[in-house]
Amino acid sequence: MSPTTPLPQQSAPSGRRELPEAPFLAAARGERPARTPVWFMRQAGRSLPEYRALREGVPMLDSCFDPEMLAEITLQPVRRHGVDAAILYSDIVVPLKAAGVDLDIVPGTGPVVAEPVRDLAAVRALPELAAEQVSPIADGVKLLVERLGETPLIGFAGAPFTLASYLIEGGPSRNLEHTKALMHSAPEVWHELAGRLADIAVTFLRAQLDAGVDAIQLFDSWAGALSERDYRRFVLPHSAKVLEGVAAYGVPRIHFGVGTGELLAAMRDAGADVVGVDWRIPLDEAVRRLGGKAVVQGNLDPALLHASWPVLEAEVRRIVEEGKAADGHIFNLGHGVLPGVDPDVLTRVAGLVHEL
Amino acid sequence: MSPTTPLPQQSAPSGRRELPEAPFLAAARGERPARTPVWFMRQAGRSLPEYRALREGVPMLDSCFDPEMLAEITLQPVRRHGVDAAILYSDIVVPLKAAGVDLDIVPGTGPVVAEPVRDLAAVRALPELAAEQVSPIADGVKLLVERLGETPLIGFAGAPFTLASYLIEGGPSRNLEHTKALMHSAPEVWHELAGRLADIAVTFLRAQLDAGVDAIQLFDSWAGALSERDYRRFVLPHSAKVLEGVAAYGVPRIHFGVGTGELLAAMRDAGADVVGVDWRIPLDEAVRRLGGKAVVQGNLDPALLHASWPVLEAEVRRIVEEGKAADGHIFNLGHGVLPGVDPDVLTRVAGLVHEL
Repeated sequence: MSPTTPLPQQSAPSGRRELPEAPFLAAARGERPARTPVWFMRQAGRSLPEYRALREGVPMLDSCFDPEMLAEITLQPVRRHGVDAAILYSDIVVPLKAAGVDLDIVPGTGPVVAEPVRDLAAVRALPELAAEQVSPIADGVKLLVERLGETPLIGFAGAPFTLASYLIEGGPSRNLEHTKALMHSAPEVWHELAGRLADIAVTFLRAQLDAGVDAIQLFDSWAGALSERDYRRFVLPHSAKVLEGVAAYGVPRIHFGVGTGELLAAMRDAGADVVGVDWRIPLDEAVRRLGGKAVVQGNLDPALLHASWPVLEAEVRRIVEEGKAADGHIFNLGHGVLPGVDPDVLTRVAGLVHEL
Repeated sequence: MSPTTPLPQQSAPSGRRELPEAPFLAAARGERPARTPVWFMRQAGRSLPEYRALREGVPMLDSCFDPEMLAEITLQPVRRHGVDAAILYSDIVVPLKAAGVDLDIVPGTGPVVAEPVRDLAAVRALPELAAEQVSPIADGVKLLVERLGETPLIGFAGAPFTLASYLIEGGPSRNLEHTKALMHSAPEVWHELAGRLADIAVTFLRAQLDAGVDAIQLFDSWAGALSERDYRRFVLPHSAKVLEGVAAYGVPRIHFGVGTGELLAAMRDAGADVVGVDWRIPLDEAVRRLGGKAVVQGNLDPALLHASWPVLEAEVRRIVEEGKAADGHIFNLGHGVLPGVDPDVLTRVAGLVHEL
């Protein structure tokens, strides 16, 4: 499908399960469930010994394309921590890999792209993604929907800007200079690339939604590197295409990036139902920036999982209290779980949130 | 000197040179000189071929302690770009190294500390800094004051929080989890450490001021990782101690960190005369956050030095225009020059700023 062709609207499949009692979904709809729902970004992964045991000798991307393994890894933190949602275990580059882009995830570095994409020819040579190319992920989702019981499952995709940054830089980058230079100097190349990546994200998310995920989160991890002016001009239209492309499913759409205090309203304007907030501003201030009516997710500094329990307890209580300014609040970290964290601390935080 | 002892006030040496015509100093005082002054953070360094030639085979820290070499490296960008200020070539860990802390700068990694400092015993074992330990830097400053003519020289020091983060983490860190955990869980250890580092920064800056620098910039590079609440509680008092410790010299004190849009007023409250602003918010918004009266420095995204000239020209013009909202504006980047930049682009930007 050409990126200039509008994506066909799909109607929500009638087979979608209903989870009317799920606190996560109630909060995402802007309601106040009996308890504050909680999950943790990167709850599935390196912080858990059972994850490290299962992954031993298995390359990251192999684990993301193995339905049984990705289902088991997704379930591990739900069993252990009693969180209110599962997040599909995957990686931001999975749909690119599935489409045939030559890349790998290098331990200790991150995604590395064989041929950086920096001109129109390279953009046009990018493959499209067909739903059947991500069928192992869809199969994993189907296993999860069977096994999760009443716990909602959140689908996962990377937003066009962050995906594009990996393709343009060739890997993780501190300063994103090639990405920013390209978007400003060759906007036609940028918009073609971001449009194609939006299509890929929509196909990836629809495959997950067709297989039964109950919500989706669009990760624009590095959007906070941009000014609001640049975000609205270069990024928002493409993230909006993704979020609109899954609107017909009627499930909550969460949108998150780190360091996005200046971008919260713009990210909501892209079509998010729930806006993720890192730890740099309190949730009541985030709600104010969102015009006073908003559903927010966040915002415990993941570094503070290394602090003493009294410190952590006070932070959790503060955040739950400040979250009352929102129409709905899903407790979470302000970024992903760090690998060195004691998982028992996460369990204790989840329990505390449920008590408050 | 114990960190709990107030530092003695020093009166400004009567031998300080006057540079009444320097646009940089006029803007720093909140005046509007005939042209907008411009310099670039990290203008001395890897972007310049003459720097790379001079440094060949010389370890980073050796070059920082060689008066002739540091003077020459400091002068290189002034000759080449015609900027309105020189910034002392140094590194944030130089005063720690001078005091005897076991650390090195590892190419491609950054500062690496042999023994991370994470408890009170380790903090109390930290050496103090005596002015004579940084006499090579003071000697370099004296050479520079002779050689710079009418161009002001900015002294350089790292702020306590950023210095502490290297000592606590043992090197550069993306998430600063040990630093944040320590400041929250063991505030008495944190404040002892930050207080000692403030003393070291004061001694280092006074040595530079006594040797003749015309302004100082206190770099709190990673302060943007903190919420304003945490910044004001754990960091501001120590940065204020540094800025107050050099107040008697009567020279402009610039204070900068990246990603500090939420912290600008707090950083000014620490005692800064000039507040550095990265590229994430426009200067007129920064001035608004500073209460409408402020001298600001910034705020071109260094990544855009890789963009095409028409894009860059438009950005420079926008920033100069937005800077008119301030009482004084010193044009600069929003962070340091990236190593891969074409230095001719910097020269062209400096020329354009002078024309506007």
